[in-house]
Amino acid sequence: MPERTSVLLTDLYQLTMLQAYFDRGMGETAVFEFFARKLPDGRNFLLAAGLEQVLDFLEGLRFTEEELAWLAGTGRFHDRFLASLGKLRFTGDVEAMAEGTVFFPDEPILRVAAPLPQAQLVETRIINLLQFQTLVASKAARVRLAAPGRLLVDFGLRRAHGAEAGLMSARASYLAGFDGSSTVLAGMRWGVPIFGTMAHSFIQAHDDELAAFEHFARSHPQATTLLIDTYDTETAARALVPLAHRLAGEGISIQAVRLDSGDLGEHARRVRAILDEGGLPDIRIFASGNLDEYRVAALLADGAPIDGFGVGTRMNTSADRPYLDCAYKLQEYAGLARRKRSEGKATWPGRKQVYRRYGDDGRTAGDVLTTADDLLPGRPLLEPVMRAGRRLAAPPPLAALREYAQAELVALPEVLRGLDQAEAYPVTVAEPLRRLADAVDRRTGR
Amino acid sequence: MPERTSVLLTDLYQLTMLQAYFDRGMGETAVFEFFARKLPDGRNFLLAAGLEQVLDFLEGLRFTEEELAWLAGTGRFHDRFLASLGKLRFTGDVEAMAEGTVFFPDEPILRVAAPLPQAQLVETRIINLLQFQTLVASKAARVRLAAPGRLLVDFGLRRAHGAEAGLMSARASYLAGFDGSSTVLAGMRWGVPIFGTMAHSFIQAHDDELAAFEHFARSHPQATTLLIDTYDTETAARALVPLAHRLAGEGISIQAVRLDSGDLGEHARRVRAILDEGGLPDIRIFASGNLDEYRVAALLADGAPIDGFGVGTRMNTSADRPYLDCAYKLQEYAGLARRKRSEGKATWPGRKQVYRRYGDDGRTAGDVLTTADDLLPGRPLLEPVMRAGRRLAAPPPLAALREYAQAELVALPEVLRGLDQAEAYPVTVAEPLRRLADAVDRRTGR
Repeated sequence: MPERTSVLLTDLYQLTMLQAYFDRGMGETAVFEFFARKLPDGRNFLLAAGLEQVLDFLEGLRFTEEELAWLAGTGRFHDRFLASLGKLRFTGDVEAMAEGTVFFPDEPILRVAAPLPQAQLVETRIINLLQFQTLVASKAARVRLAAPGRLLVDFGLRRAHGAEAGLMSARASYLAGFDGSSTVLAGMRWGVPIFGTMAHSFIQAHDDELAAFEHFARSHPQATTLLIDTYDTETAARALVPLAHRLAGEGISIQAVRLDSGDLGEHARRVRAILDEGGLPDIRIFASGNLDEYRVAALLADGAPIDGFGVGTRMNTSADRPYLDCAYKLQEYAGLARRKRSEGKATWPGRKQVYRRYGDDGRTAGDVLTTADDLLPGRPLLEPVMRAGRRLAAPPPLAALREYAQAELVALPEVLRGLDQAEAYPVTVAEPLRRLADAVDRRTGR
Repeated sequence: MPERTSVLLTDLYQLTMLQAYFDRGMGETAVFEFFARKLPDGRNFLLAAGLEQVLDFLEGLRFTEEELAWLAGTGRFHDRFLASLGKLRFTGDVEAMAEGTVFFPDEPILRVAAPLPQAQLVETRIINLLQFQTLVASKAARVRLAAPGRLLVDFGLRRAHGAEAGLMSARASYLAGFDGSSTVLAGMRWGVPIFGTMAHSFIQAHDDELAAFEHFARSHPQATTLLIDTYDTETAARALVPLAHRLAGEGISIQAVRLDSGDLGEHARRVRAILDEGGLPDIRIFASGNLDEYRVAALLADGAPIDGFGVGTRMNTSADRPYLDCAYKLQEYAGLARRKRSEGKATWPGRKQVYRRYGDDGRTAGDVLTTADDLLPGRPLLEPVMRAGRRLAAPPPLAALREYAQAELVALPEVLRGLDQAEAYPVTVAEPLRRLADAVDRRTGR
């Protein structure tokens, strides 16, 4: 985010822990990894997203004078500690899976190795950035798989959870295979193709629906999509036929009509027939309104003649599963592997790597989770992306990440590409990692 | 938000419609209202929130040179229109319900009256701001009602949907009656009380759990909450007893312990017994982990000795109902009332007011939705807050809004304060509004 997010957008406990680390001189290298504990119910895979924003955040990490003065005023922190915060920068290393990589539970998609206070402080925002974009990209990928060949546009800014959620869901859904977004800022910031139609208010502000159509088309002669459900959908479609022919004579083309209410499949069939009989087979039908992967799949399975979908709220909020069971956990400190043993939340210790194997058909055949220094056949998914607080490469173009993500989805076993929950993809834990976990438990007497 | 959000954080269609309005010279006064179409399933009321951020947005509305240059580069807009955007400011009037007001479907909580292009352009961000804070405040109010007298702290920043969602959910939950948040920036920005404990990583970074407790307590001698579930909860509680007594001798007090996994009620009972038998009845028990209003209510109904709750993800994402069926609709243009008639989405036309009646017991007895110029008994809920683009008053302190919201909740009929869905609160539509709707339909021939 070019707009700096305050370093105080964090949990208070990060700062109280940092003071305790400061007081005890605990500044050796800590290794944290971000991973999902399990898949959301009904899902078959996750799609990694949000890395670029994490790297932006790490490169920009610093406390302003104003923030330090406010912290001092809380009376919770002593001066020597606050002075140390003033000098704090992120100087650590990061390994990560590329954005757009398919991944599964327990597989780290990000590893941070840095002096303990730095690696600890960044926890809250790293989770905040990775969980949300990953959540939306994973949901959007399902919509993409449900609608092969159809135009898919993110329409969800208004009911996304705030500004960043709206902007980031435009990015994440494009990364996952959407064709673009209605969110203008996503176009300016990342080159996401932007799409738009018209609102009911435009029709209502005119006394006559057909006059509204004509005015809009004359203002946008090359890219007009008309919203035809404000009053009665089929009446509007019939009225549109002579208008479209008249405007075509002046070089003004109507590209599409949008349906936004009622039985979308039934309206689409009737409108298609009206347009076809009216000699307008090239006007496409675009549908929106409470759509998600299930409704899109049902409409297409039912043969609805819909060429494109505006998918909003349910995708941008991942409405059926609005959060991910994920964590950023300490795996090593001062050269010793660590693990958490809380009930139901135990983790695999140490620095890890994920190897992905492929079958003869080019499809993924299974992953192996092992220690970072283990060497196994297959493709290692975690790669170095930051050293000593600096990116190793400029951010890849979002369109390139999108192509990579599509290749990742193509490589998935067919059964995992469906909307129904399939048997879990095989992720095995290699022997060196099991031995490490045992050694950690023996060392800590558990 | 002091951090400016780009005016391009909007849907493309706002800008394409604005060009069409510009081309046709349509700049008369438009009136839009924001309202919920229906309650989320299982909910009995909504709590209005987000108005201050809307007013900030309206006061700061403008296009930068960089934004205009980017728009020009898209090739979608002509120069005279873009020049008009450069001069665009919000010069309209706003009426609204105070933040913290309880409201119901079809009742507008915000009305904008401004030249059509201005009132149209702000649609996306107004919905984005009001729906999210209202959603979270309404959810948080249920948690507050489920846990009378208990400490409630927002813990959800990390799994909120991005930066603004995290920050705004701290604000909205405090407004709705939470005691505070772990989000430090919410403290700096609005004076939301901030709370924090420690993470498992703090324990794990030490070789010994008890040493970790002692180090933390010495760094924060007045406000220590210790997380005791990293390895074995009861073992940690027993080990804590002699440590707490020893530290007390030095003036260092342990305020509370936190449970974050397993059967929270059962652990709380065992830990309470250990602490009481150990002569530490003043150490409070704080619980967190996948909590929402239902789980909190169940724990308390079961007699769990828990003094406070950290409530995160499920509240901040309103996980069971992660969006609100709401809209910002054109109700009047150029002096004529308007309405949308789309299937299942018809609206009441014109400028409206809501009157709330109270019973002899001081509880709310029913609302009446009517035209803005109708005068009825009861309390009018919409009040002027902005004239000609300027706030009529400085933002009220958030703590004052929180007190008001609590009074609103107290005034609810008892049955609406429960977690189960009750019979709908009575909202009647007054005769003048029905007549207006009929007149609009007659005028538009529908």
